[in-house]
Amino acid sequence: MYEILQTISGPKDVKKLSAEQLKNLAGEIRAAVLNRDCTVGGHVGPNLGIVETAIALHYVFNSPNDKIVWDVSHQCYPHKLLTGRQEGFITEAGMKKISGYSNQDESEHDFFKVGHTSTSVSLACGLAKARDLQGQKHNVIAVIGDGSLSGGEALEGFSNAAVLGSNIIIILNDNEMSIAENHGGIYNNLQLLRDTNGKAECNMFKAWGFEYRYVADGNSVEDMIEALQALKNTDKPTVLHIHTLKGKGYKPAEEDKEPWHWNLPFNIADGSCKWDLSGENINDLTYNYLLEKIKQDKRIVAINAGTPGVFGLNAERRKVLGEHFVDVGIAEEHAVAFSSALAKGGAKPIYLVMSSFIQRTYDQLSQDLALNNNPAVILVAWGGISGADMTHLCSFDISMTSNIPNLVYLAPTTAEEYMAMLDWAVEQNKHPVIIRQPKEMLHSDKPVDKDYSRLNTYKIEEKGDKVAIIAAGSFFRLGENVAAELQKRGIKPTLINPRYLSGVDKECLQSLKAAHRLVITLEDGELDGGFGEKVTRFYGASEMKVLNYGSFKEFTDRADLNELYRRYRLTPELIVEDALATLK
Amino acid sequence: MYEILQTISGPKDVKKLSAEQLKNLAGEIRAAVLNRDCTVGGHVGPNLGIVETAIALHYVFNSPNDKIVWDVSHQCYPHKLLTGRQEGFITEAGMKKISGYSNQDESEHDFFKVGHTSTSVSLACGLAKARDLQGQKHNVIAVIGDGSLSGGEALEGFSNAAVLGSNIIIILNDNEMSIAENHGGIYNNLQLLRDTNGKAECNMFKAWGFEYRYVADGNSVEDMIEALQALKNTDKPTVLHIHTLKGKGYKPAEEDKEPWHWNLPFNIADGSCKWDLSGENINDLTYNYLLEKIKQDKRIVAINAGTPGVFGLNAERRKVLGEHFVDVGIAEEHAVAFSSALAKGGAKPIYLVMSSFIQRTYDQLSQDLALNNNPAVILVAWGGISGADMTHLCSFDISMTSNIPNLVYLAPTTAEEYMAMLDWAVEQNKHPVIIRQPKEMLHSDKPVDKDYSRLNTYKIEEKGDKVAIIAAGSFFRLGENVAAELQKRGIKPTLINPRYLSGVDKECLQSLKAAHRLVITLEDGELDGGFGEKVTRFYGASEMKVLNYGSFKEFTDRADLNELYRRYRLTPELIVEDALATLK
Repeated sequence: MYEILQTISGPKDVKKLSAEQLKNLAGEIRAAVLNRDCTVGGHVGPNLGIVETAIALHYVFNSPNDKIVWDVSHQCYPHKLLTGRQEGFITEAGMKKISGYSNQDESEHDFFKVGHTSTSVSLACGLAKARDLQGQKHNVIAVIGDGSLSGGEALEGFSNAAVLGSNIIIILNDNEMSIAENHGGIYNNLQLLRDTNGKAECNMFKAWGFEYRYVADGNSVEDMIEALQALKNTDKPTVLHIHTLKGKGYKPAEEDKEPWHWNLPFNIADGSCKWDLSGENINDLTYNYLLEKIKQDKRIVAINAGTPGVFGLNAERRKVLGEHFVDVGIAEEHAVAFSSALAKGGAKPIYLVMSSFIQRTYDQLSQDLALNNNPAVILVAWGGISGADMTHLCSFDISMTSNIPNLVYLAPTTAEEYMAMLDWAVEQNKHPVIIRQPKEMLHSDKPVDKDYSRLNTYKIEEKGDKVAIIAAGSFFRLGENVAAELQKRGIKPTLINPRYLSGVDKECLQSLKAAHRLVITLEDGELDGGFGEKVTRFYGASEMKVLNYGSFKEFTDRADLNELYRRYRLTPELIVEDALATLK
Repeated sequence: MYEILQTISGPKDVKKLSAEQLKNLAGEIRAAVLNRDCTVGGHVGPNLGIVETAIALHYVFNSPNDKIVWDVSHQCYPHKLLTGRQEGFITEAGMKKISGYSNQDESEHDFFKVGHTSTSVSLACGLAKARDLQGQKHNVIAVIGDGSLSGGEALEGFSNAAVLGSNIIIILNDNEMSIAENHGGIYNNLQLLRDTNGKAECNMFKAWGFEYRYVADGNSVEDMIEALQALKNTDKPTVLHIHTLKGKGYKPAEEDKEPWHWNLPFNIADGSCKWDLSGENINDLTYNYLLEKIKQDKRIVAINAGTPGVFGLNAERRKVLGEHFVDVGIAEEHAVAFSSALAKGGAKPIYLVMSSFIQRTYDQLSQDLALNNNPAVILVAWGGISGADMTHLCSFDISMTSNIPNLVYLAPTTAEEYMAMLDWAVEQNKHPVIIRQPKEMLHSDKPVDKDYSRLNTYKIEEKGDKVAIIAAGSFFRLGENVAAELQKRGIKPTLINPRYLSGVDKECLQSLKAAHRLVITLEDGELDGGFGEKVTRFYGASEMKVLNYGSFKEFTDRADLNELYRRYRLTPELIVEDALATLK
């Protein structure tokens, strides 16, 4: 099945192959990519589209002396297959070992750990300048998709690459798609260039000073080899614009590109998902809320930066939302400033962003939004400790956002509380409000508050004494379990839902002093700079003991979640053990 | 002197003036701008260059119904003079009251508080979309300088503005300068457009889908009025590219544009500075270090993003540094990724950034740098509590950066320690290291450590008991003063220089338990998420009392520093008062 692949231990073996063999190799790579994707899930379309480019790169250049930087890593599988990591695509054990992202710890042919978009050109500029300072001679190549091009960091990188004055080759892989469809004026120019076979006079890359070359069929190994051979060892910053087919070689992925950008494990025969995704979910809840709201209020508008799928906003749903949904493309900074100004202009913006990607907008949250105190709403998805790849951790958002003045960060514990907080946030006009979507669809038949305008008021859910547990958001259930465990030991603790991650309820904390000796804080995220430390600081000069639970300041990588919980002592048993030791 | 200005209470009065009067008004505005600048300092060149544009805008459009967004606020003085804020330019009391930045609390003609670059186009997009959702009709105008254009947020904004599908007018004020000279390929296109009077076929703005118009003399009121009248009420996203002279009307500013971008109070006759800037300073120290280092090691390279003046790197010094200095233009994200890759490629990068602007790079610090653990060095200037404008506060950097894994954040207390830490950071190859430049040039004849590779090791400077003071960076002197004050009360405290802002010395903190009952932390920055809270968390379950000192989570605005210190209880007397109360 992998006849030629088996002979490829590294780039040197690619160079030995005939034209015919290179073409067959492409087919084998596609089979291997699909084998991994259908087994453990991963990026499908981007990898299937870039196969010939990866082959041509390793045929023409001499990696790792020549250095290839893959943007966002969505298209790095074929490169991995050609650089000694075939086990990651063949065996299940290998799939666990080899990640879906570029990683220099895996191979000398990778230079960076990358999972956020739009960074490759800047990184390549750094490698090129380091080369020039040291008087070395080699090629530096960035491979970036058209979807990543709209990100500010990428555009800053292009502008600086254009004036580097020495060798840098940027392969712009234009498959006419971002994760979803592209958005932004820059894509008008890509279309013009495609339509004119790269000949149009009006060319943003030439305008900026690049040498420019176009390859109409980037899925032709021959054409790609020819183009790269012509550019090899150039001393000028160069853009090689190639047109490829996203998902090439797998019919479902070719025909329906958006859901096949990244996919869960699937049945290869028909592309059907192996997982049962039925049942209630947070995305349906949010979408239905938006729909209802829009019927009543034309000022409502949802904003997203190139990842609508995270929120279940597929093409059909986006069409229904119409002008009340704006995908700004990969442009998170723009999205936050845009949302702030929408609120200032009287609209009711709701910006939808995944926890790991809100990191791209600290200054926009601070300057464009918080300083101006505009009532934009931000929904953060997936926030919390996870077994994710190290490039997609979602445990830093509390620490990052909750120390910015004026931002109100809410952590609902149930679906009902989420809906109430969301509606309050949308209808109020005094604060920028961030809401951390619950990770699980828990329900409660207790009444939930509708009004959150008295900031930083914690809710005492159960009254007890000696120990108080402040359990935030998705860790409220853990708080309940700790409480139950303590009760077994004869302590009936107070259980508090703090609701606000961005501040402390001084009155509540003060009142706990009367009958409590220990406060336990639980948060689903990094301890350093997080919610719990604020509580601890409040009690610094008092007799109250405080134990903070959350994740450590570290990048974990595809960790076993239960193992992480044990290491962080995030189980009822371990927490109770610590509590009893502290109370002794 | 201000004959016509006196008749202008708002935009409506501008519309009544004759061509001749408009021209004279320009002269009066220049005089008023200079009157403020020479008295209290401020932005000179950008405001002198934009006078005619501001007049034409208020002549043609109907602010605040039509909405004008000024990028970064460097050119908002003439607009302020035409919108009821002349006191800010005439009387010293008025100059204190009216800020140098756009501010909606000052006037209905401002829409945002802005002091960081490259945000205007995204903000204007939000106002325009809010207008469209609500079925309103008015013009939305962004005014952005060519220097701000290179910022990623601006480029994201342009790309999205181009596809807005309705009225938005972006005035690109091209004065051929950023704060210093421009850097980046995008400026090649601006030059081509200037050279061809806007006629070149290769036009990045047209490429992206904008209508485009060029005004060769943006300092002609007539030409500007004509252009704006032609564009008023357009239903298409439009770029109006204008060419102006930075510093126009004041010879020193016209002739030497970079130092006159922003200036301290000066003598109007010859432009000489009113302040005495002689004496030793941190910038000379850093520059001399770089010079010496470069002689020995060609891999050294200093990087800056468009603000070399903050580090005293004037044109002459930049020339001396040659290829060992890279100004990437306003492109902070690129700067961090670039630095990370320089380190990966074997160079020794030192990125120079002001505290307020490091905020623009949280994700680049986390993903591009920290996750990859490349040994790039970052020097942070001006970090600490200050009386700065609310848009330029420098009190958030500890909280923002020190909770990112892998980053080592050092806070030197003296010039000697700064030099030692800098040299260690440059020579080591294990960690990304940030160093917070000292705010004052304090000296010490005590020997300083050369090696900081054992992370998070605090230095006990004076041994005592009962109370331990952990005084970080620029607050070490405050720590000494607190210690002296305590000694007067019969307590000889332990005084600790923690050196590392990004972690705690568990061994040291543990050892303090034996003879101390109270730990005091002092940090020159925000308490929330900062250094002190980490110490407090360490002691959470122990008997140790902890008091944390720093600034509150708030945006202050041109505050009196001593008043702030009192409010934050950051004086030796107040701290000792708290300490004694806690020990009781």
